Amino acid sequence: MRALGQDYRSIFVDEDGLGVVIIDQTALPHAFETRRLIGLDDAVTAIADMWVRGAPLVGVTAAYGVALAMLADDSDAALHEACERLAGARPTAVNLAWAVEEMHRLLAPLAPFERAKAAYAAASVIAEEDVVNNAAIGDHGLALIKEIAARKGGVVNIMTHCNAGWLATVDWGTATAPIYKAHEAGVPLHVWVSETRPRNQGAFLTAWELGQHGVPHTLIVDNSAGHLMQLGEVDLIIVGADRITAQGDVCNKIGTYLKALAAHDNGVPFYVAAPSPSIDFALREGSDIPIETRSAREVTHMAGRTESGDLATIRLSPEGTDALNYGFDVTPARLVSGLITERGVIAATEEALAAAFPERVTG
Amino acid sequence: MRALGQDYRSIFVDEDGLGVVIIDQTALPHAFETRRLIGLDDAVTAIADMWVRGAPLVGVTAAYGVALAMLADDSDAALHEACERLAGARPTAVNLAWAVEEMHRLLAPLAPFERAKAAYAAASVIAEEDVVNNAAIGDHGLALIKEIAARKGGVVNIMTHCNAGWLATVDWGTATAPIYKAHEAGVPLHVWVSETRPRNQGAFLTAWELGQHGVPHTLIVDNSAGHLMQLGEVDLIIVGADRITAQGDVCNKIGTYLKALAAHDNGVPFYVAAPSPSIDFALREGSDIPIETRSAREVTHMAGRTESGDLATIRLSPEGTDALNYGFDVTPARLVSGLITERGVIAATEEALAAAFPERVTG
Repeated sequence: MRALGQDYRSIFVDEDGLGVVIIDQTALPHAFETRRLIGLDDAVTAIADMWVRGAPLVGVTAAYGVALAMLADDSDAALHEACERLAGARPTAVNLAWAVEEMHRLLAPLAPFERAKAAYAAASVIAEEDVVNNAAIGDHGLALIKEIAARKGGVVNIMTHCNAGWLATVDWGTATAPIYKAHEAGVPLHVWVSETRPRNQGAFLTAWELGQHGVPHTLIVDNSAGHLMQLGEVDLIIVGADRITAQGDVCNKIGTYLKALAAHDNGVPFYVAAPSPSIDFALREGSDIPIETRSAREVTHMAGRTESGDLATIRLSPEGTDALNYGFDVTPARLVSGLITERGVIAATEEALAAAFPERVTG
Repeated sequence: MRALGQDYRSIFVDEDGLGVVIIDQTALPHAFETRRLIGLDDAVTAIADMWVRGAPLVGVTAAYGVALAMLADDSDAALHEACERLAGARPTAVNLAWAVEEMHRLLAPLAPFERAKAAYAAASVIAEEDVVNNAAIGDHGLALIKEIAARKGGVVNIMTHCNAGWLATVDWGTATAPIYKAHEAGVPLHVWVSETRPRNQGAFLTAWELGQHGVPHTLIVDNSAGHLMQLGEVDLIIVGADRITAQGDVCNKIGTYLKALAAHDNGVPFYVAAPSPSIDFALREGSDIPIETRSAREVTHMAGRTESGDLATIRLSPEGTDALNYGFDVTPARLVSGLITERGVIAATEEALAAAFPERVTG
């Protein structure tokens, strides 16, 4: 999508065909910096330190990470180590495990000397699939937005949470794909951007993305979501997902569940946009998903830009205050109006998901 | 309660019997600074700029503000102007309007020369009533906590929102009164402190209060509340209220409604602690309560202390991002397990409230 007036993807292979370029998302929105990953260590760091984030982009970065590893050492041991380290770089996202397994499945049978080239090709296929999937999600979501626009007339108010934007994928985004498609189709819309504490991906990334692309939006604190719904100022919620279970429970950024509850209480449609690799057919119950806790410092401290233009980190809480920081929560399927996937809008039920993705159903 | 190892109240008359001392709550938790108010302008500023905040403390400050005004000019015109300016300094809290009306009702019939002395006396009565009411709220809430402790065994986990602590009142606090009473009674407890964006009163004030008083607590982002309840880590929620309607709808800090929804969805008792001046028997529907919007800058910027110890304000969002900032939301009575008042725990219904406060029922 558009950034600094140019078309960008969040990850791409450099002109030399070797280095992998990503946008350092920890620097946004205050600086736009790209980084060139040149080995396995870089790829692991990029994932673990969240230079890249968002389940789909993390998966694609891991795939390219395997390719970078194979450049340096294409042995069985190196392949095994690369897959293990990349898969362990973040615990929750199913796309990460999926991409690494896919790479291992493709590369393990090959002769070592064939692996590096095959790995770049396979990673690029995964990246392209993500773009195609998200464009399809955008088209299916666009139909929902058009329906609301036709019924309501005037501006459609869409709320999102965290950043399930193009920065979280390769292009289009998941939750934002319908928004970008609707914007391009000329549907008048406005987006409520929740700041998404503690990492502020809404304030830092989604507000930046939408601003760069010219989509009208307003930033709110997460606490405001319910009140806006009570006032009738939200026509539709679209969020992304880190993992969806076989019965349609949705693991997504912490706070998603609260928005889903408020949507349910106020009759606001609550949709989850995600490509099928985010669906984990091996897991049934959302409560079985391991939820990572992250550093307490993400809660007690915050980084931003001072009036004088310097970057600064400030402490919010009294010195010595303990904090607990869960990264995700689980929204039960009963609160989900539908899942917007590349194969259409699917009910959040075991039957509907199995019918839509019969080839994925296990056991 | 305890601060810096001493017993404090949030507002008191200075040794000279004239100046009114408050704690500048905009400086907490990074600095503990008291300020001496010496005239009407100071009192209006203290309320409008939130040196003092919390519905009960705002009411008491306004009462002392009338006294300060009468010292300088005890005419009918000055009394009228003082009441008008103080009542308009913040829009939502019913205690403010109540305290100002009460002062006007008492002082208007007096000869001007009697007003200043009578005003100090009346303000001190309002302050003492607040302390007595909150101590009673603490005792009634303590019974609830003891019940849970007896049933559950082990540590009772209580969640609160914003700061309905002693800093929001004259002493004890409202939501915190049961917590302090239980702590003093030796009931093992732990408090989940929601940071309460955008003004972070949880992180800034409640964490500070509980830390100073030695009550175990953990800071969380507002987004974590639902997940903790899903995990069974919350036994009880107690929040304060800015205004309660005749039918038991609760206007409180933005985000309260989301916690109430999650409590309802997870079978967690959700109590609102408030003295009866916070009940507005003239209003029936929560949706009729005017909700103030505050500066967008509270959302887009944040203040705290840097590593080097300096205070700094940082911008979170991209330059030019618009924000909308509602201060409060309304939790419908159906989500409230009970109202902890100075007269006991009362069901959030029109009948129960009318029965408990028959002298307050209008029309």
